[in-house]
Amino acid sequence: MRRIWIGSFLATILAAGAAVAEEGMWTPDQIGAIAPRLAEKGLQISAANLADLDKGPLGAVIFLGGCTASFVSPDGLVVTNHHCAVGAIQRNSTPENNLLKNGFVAATRKDELWAGPAARIWVTRKETDVTDKMTAAVAKIRSDVAAFEAIDAVSKALVAECEQDKTVRCEVAVYDAGGRYVLNERLEIRDVRLVHAPPDAIGSYGGDIDNWMWPRHTGDWSLFRAYVGQDGKPAEYSEQNVPFKPSRYLEVSSEGVADGDLVFVAGYPGSTSRNLTAAELTTQAEVVAPQMLRTFQDLVDIVHEEQKRSPEAAVKLTPTRDGLANGLKYMQGLNDGFAKSGIVAERKKAEAAFLAALDADKVKKKKVRPAIDALFAAIETNAPYVGQEQILRWMLRLPVALRTAATIHWLAVQRELPDEQRDEGFQKRDEEQLWARLEQLQQGYVPEADKAFLRYFLAANQKLPAASQITPLVELVKEHGGEQQAVDALYKGLEVDQADSRKKLFSADKKTVEASADPLIQLAKRLYPVRDAQNKRGKKMAGAEARFRPVYLQAWRDHLGGLLYPDANATLRITYGDVQGYSPREAITYAATTTARGILEKHTGVEPFDAPETLRKAIERVHQGQKSNSDRFLVDNTVPVNFLSTCDTTGGNSGSPTLDARGRLVGLLFDGNYESMASDWAFDTVRNRSIHVDIRYLLWSLAEVVQGQHLLSEMGIDLK
Amino acid sequence: MRRIWIGSFLATILAAGAAVAEEGMWTPDQIGAIAPRLAEKGLQISAANLADLDKGPLGAVIFLGGCTASFVSPDGLVVTNHHCAVGAIQRNSTPENNLLKNGFVAATRKDELWAGPAARIWVTRKETDVTDKMTAAVAKIRSDVAAFEAIDAVSKALVAECEQDKTVRCEVAVYDAGGRYVLNERLEIRDVRLVHAPPDAIGSYGGDIDNWMWPRHTGDWSLFRAYVGQDGKPAEYSEQNVPFKPSRYLEVSSEGVADGDLVFVAGYPGSTSRNLTAAELTTQAEVVAPQMLRTFQDLVDIVHEEQKRSPEAAVKLTPTRDGLANGLKYMQGLNDGFAKSGIVAERKKAEAAFLAALDADKVKKKKVRPAIDALFAAIETNAPYVGQEQILRWMLRLPVALRTAATIHWLAVQRELPDEQRDEGFQKRDEEQLWARLEQLQQGYVPEADKAFLRYFLAANQKLPAASQITPLVELVKEHGGEQQAVDALYKGLEVDQADSRKKLFSADKKTVEASADPLIQLAKRLYPVRDAQNKRGKKMAGAEARFRPVYLQAWRDHLGGLLYPDANATLRITYGDVQGYSPREAITYAATTTARGILEKHTGVEPFDAPETLRKAIERVHQGQKSNSDRFLVDNTVPVNFLSTCDTTGGNSGSPTLDARGRLVGLLFDGNYESMASDWAFDTVRNRSIHVDIRYLLWSLAEVVQGQHLLSEMGIDLK
Repeated sequence: MRRIWIGSFLATILAAGAAVAEEGMWTPDQIGAIAPRLAEKGLQISAANLADLDKGPLGAVIFLGGCTASFVSPDGLVVTNHHCAVGAIQRNSTPENNLLKNGFVAATRKDELWAGPAARIWVTRKETDVTDKMTAAVAKIRSDVAAFEAIDAVSKALVAECEQDKTVRCEVAVYDAGGRYVLNERLEIRDVRLVHAPPDAIGSYGGDIDNWMWPRHTGDWSLFRAYVGQDGKPAEYSEQNVPFKPSRYLEVSSEGVADGDLVFVAGYPGSTSRNLTAAELTTQAEVVAPQMLRTFQDLVDIVHEEQKRSPEAAVKLTPTRDGLANGLKYMQGLNDGFAKSGIVAERKKAEAAFLAALDADKVKKKKVRPAIDALFAAIETNAPYVGQEQILRWMLRLPVALRTAATIHWLAVQRELPDEQRDEGFQKRDEEQLWARLEQLQQGYVPEADKAFLRYFLAANQKLPAASQITPLVELVKEHGGEQQAVDALYKGLEVDQADSRKKLFSADKKTVEASADPLIQLAKRLYPVRDAQNKRGKKMAGAEARFRPVYLQAWRDHLGGLLYPDANATLRITYGDVQGYSPREAITYAATTTARGILEKHTGVEPFDAPETLRKAIERVHQGQKSNSDRFLVDNTVPVNFLSTCDTTGGNSGSPTLDARGRLVGLLFDGNYESMASDWAFDTVRNRSIHVDIRYLLWSLAEVVQGQHLLSEMGIDLK
Repeated sequence: MRRIWIGSFLATILAAGAAVAEEGMWTPDQIGAIAPRLAEKGLQISAANLADLDKGPLGAVIFLGGCTASFVSPDGLVVTNHHCAVGAIQRNSTPENNLLKNGFVAATRKDELWAGPAARIWVTRKETDVTDKMTAAVAKIRSDVAAFEAIDAVSKALVAECEQDKTVRCEVAVYDAGGRYVLNERLEIRDVRLVHAPPDAIGSYGGDIDNWMWPRHTGDWSLFRAYVGQDGKPAEYSEQNVPFKPSRYLEVSSEGVADGDLVFVAGYPGSTSRNLTAAELTTQAEVVAPQMLRTFQDLVDIVHEEQKRSPEAAVKLTPTRDGLANGLKYMQGLNDGFAKSGIVAERKKAEAAFLAALDADKVKKKKVRPAIDALFAAIETNAPYVGQEQILRWMLRLPVALRTAATIHWLAVQRELPDEQRDEGFQKRDEEQLWARLEQLQQGYVPEADKAFLRYFLAANQKLPAASQITPLVELVKEHGGEQQAVDALYKGLEVDQADSRKKLFSADKKTVEASADPLIQLAKRLYPVRDAQNKRGKKMAGAEARFRPVYLQAWRDHLGGLLYPDANATLRITYGDVQGYSPREAITYAATTTARGILEKHTGVEPFDAPETLRKAIERVHQGQKSNSDRFLVDNTVPVNFLSTCDTTGGNSGSPTLDARGRLVGLLFDGNYESMASDWAFDTVRNRSIHVDIRYLLWSLAEVVQGQHLLSEMGIDLK
């Protein structure tokens, strides 16, 4: 999986604990504590400055929602990954000029292309510790559900208060499952424009085949620019808007890095689960991961069959197929990772030792053991629902029409509640985005494929142990005398797949929605009790976690000792490491860096290895030794392309700036290696690697492949 | 492809020329000439002895027909690959004791298992140059067909005279397409017994997935013993037979080899085509190889579909599927190899330079250019038949019943001729083996699969350019109104798929066979003119080659200069090289050696990575540092398993002994790497590698995994 964050559907808990490894995803306020280690490794700037949003490079690191980016000029020029910009590029493509295929460089600012109404840049402005307020709210509560509600209420109130300033978006980030709470205030820039994208054949060179793989040769970059109103404040898109002047932007270095060099990655990693209990980890590794592997194998087979039906179906289902194929590869790597790393056995052993040590200390035992037992009990209570929840989650995600119906119905039910009590993602502030997402979904709607997916999940439900089956689905199949018959009936007379009636239903109240004759709306209504029970279980679990997991984590921490970092939670983090290759298996060694020689070596002329002629010719000029002003970007008479580091990253880090020992931009994080797929559960320093594009490849390309010299100048690179 | 020789179906010529590379497949009489190079590289025995069948290790190197082997004890103990012994192992398996799965060690000589009536060991006894006799026969002939017939007649007469001694099998080997002829006399040992085979999970560890791949961890060995009558002469199998006493056997070394060491491979490489003309190479690379890739892709799809029909079909078609999958992988590698190596462009350039230099020298031009032009013309005449010939070849090979019918009919036609005029492989001396092979074929007969294959080839024929189509097939399809209808009609009322009638037809004369109502026999009869024309074209081409290719090769040689080796032709050769890893692609380095650590690393418990528990426990004892008498076989506290070398090998070399600088046995050649699939056309020293099993893995296994200490003793290894 490229390092984009799509939410961790495998994590049963929303936020988890702390870890002990030397590597880690450090919060800005921890940098002081790790300063001695950084100095030892050769940091050449002050660690204090590195941490300071107002003084150091971290102030230039911004969130795109799912991806990270950074400012690289005083005029709001932003660099991120190509795969984080695909939506904006597609949006501006026309049948005559497919920008995805051809790439794009805005010759002047006037040529910069609006990324659309959904595009956002969030600039972290302030992080305020609100732990006291949050924990005070639950201090005396003795029920899990009440605890969840109390936390939820305080959190929503804090957010509402913070968002009085209409230019910011706020959220309460949870660390260590409730050990710490931080209110983030992020400036929300709403006019984002595309400045440069490489052709897909550079930006996604290697495609799905190379995805997650090393050696890699991908030019995974894009440039945006942040625009604001003439008053300097965020504003909706307007031709009168002007470039945003960031308080911090990164210095771009053309000196590069080499094997063994210290590097940093600063960004917004989405979620990790490095401190699950042994029972939770066992469920993930031995139940969820294998089940999801089988499910993805089946779903990939289904989508392939459906694509054969017609050229139209083939096109419409391509994104679904790519997503499923990507998921399958991830699941294979994840299962491989769990199997090879032995982390489950290790965690069991470590937890047993931890509990034994705890129980041996009577004072400690009395103080923390009850909370730990309560956490274990809550986890155990939830475990039997895992199979059911996976089926329900994917059944309500893959078939487009059913997903639409279920979303409309859930929203209608939520609208009955006061806004502050509505679920996260279903509040008034979310409705616009929710509708936009539903409409986008319809592009991939193929009724026959919908039906095939739904049939699959109905059958999968029947195969669960009787006690775990979703009763309304069992009844549905029985009523129609078979899964196929049920599915056929459900897809007759739909309203949710008609633009007009869908729009009406989306805006309607619960009564109107539930009165609809649409069979999928009726199915959604029928499934509501199951989803509601699941939702309540989730809230109860979240409440139990807030009450007990911090106690567990604190005790676990005390037992392990050392400096620890909290699990990723989409807040700003910094990780450090070395440029370093690895050995994936006996007798194979991977070097840490790749070059343009490898691009030519992989080139076949067939996607995804179809390097553009302009690129190939430019590389050949270099290899023939022709001199140019861009020679400063070369290494060993060729163009550096990608490199590996031991930095600890995950989904959400895509586009993160890679910094050198002086805090200068030397690369962009864009992927993790195949061996790191289990790293969300445990980091393995021997074989987990982050994959970066060398910024010199971008700089050289701007000078030699596309007409981007003015952008080099803007980044402070003078080729003369 | 493991290094077994199944005949080079891609080579359009029967024997080809010489090459210029430093590496090569040298004939024993060339070793004197390369002695200085060998001395430089550290040879520690006399090069003259190395070459001498009576004095050096070459005398111990024997031919199994498709594989190579060597004597390793004074009592006729033979070591070769596991994959060369599969037939013998299967033959001795029972439902109660599956030797393929369980492996086997004969505790005493009485327990050794007969490998069956088809098993042979050929010991090269004498090589006599008969070039003068052969070339005298064609000296004054001015027609290609007459040249072929003259050569064929002299060759058959020499063989018949040589085989007056009933203990030997003789053949006239062709070097450089007729530049040199050698009469080989090989002692034919007819009682061969299985002494030891590892379990399939060791001998084929990694299976199809690892086939051709590196890093490798395969224990690809087996032990046989040669038996003769009490008079010491070859005899049919009898309990009274005694072990054969070879004049030479190899010294087995437990000292091993390490990265950079000089090694030799001695064996019987089947066929290479390193000196095709530019036109021939272009046809191979740009027509035949891509066409065969597509064909194999289609055939693999077909056999997969057919296997789904029933469990019975799945089992029967497994060898066919494995063969096709293997072929497909080979074709992919071959096409990759042609594409990446650029050998076609190189050959074109080299040939143009050669011809230009030749034409510039008027004397030379006058002397050799007419012969070269004649060769080029003959090649051009044959080129249009390539597509048709591939279809006919595979159509008459894959569908079992059609292959049976076509073989029976061809034999019946050949029987009309005097024996010495019958085609090679269809003479009296071949009939017994021909029948045995037909009978074995029937085990894989699945009528529906036969029909699917035949339908495919009928359709493929229709897609050829009209002028290249096989007319009787076009007519057949027209008569029945479609390919499916034609196939259905052809598979009704068969006699060739009934044991009794098949036997009768096999022994019948032409008239009786052609009177049969069997529709496939009738198809064979109908195809006879096409096959006959093809056969005649082949003979004409062979005659043209005998007349002109030696002239071309000699001129080519003169142009290139240096010492050259003839293309492989299933005669005894020796190749030398270094133990050496390689880089398959940028940023990847392969080490030259693997160990038991990699076996455990690959172990999943699922075939083909299901290492037996006895093996894993023995390895774990080693890794835990337990001392034993077998520690002499270890390196770095683990068991050496496989290694790579730069030796130049091909199909037929499977089982070849790998010798160290002192001529001692240190390994067994068993495969080439993926990058070497185009090596039959051009050897690439940078990326072509041979793959060997380290003999210490066998020795250690005999001591620690199976009860084979007595065999170690027999090989002169004393563990005390």
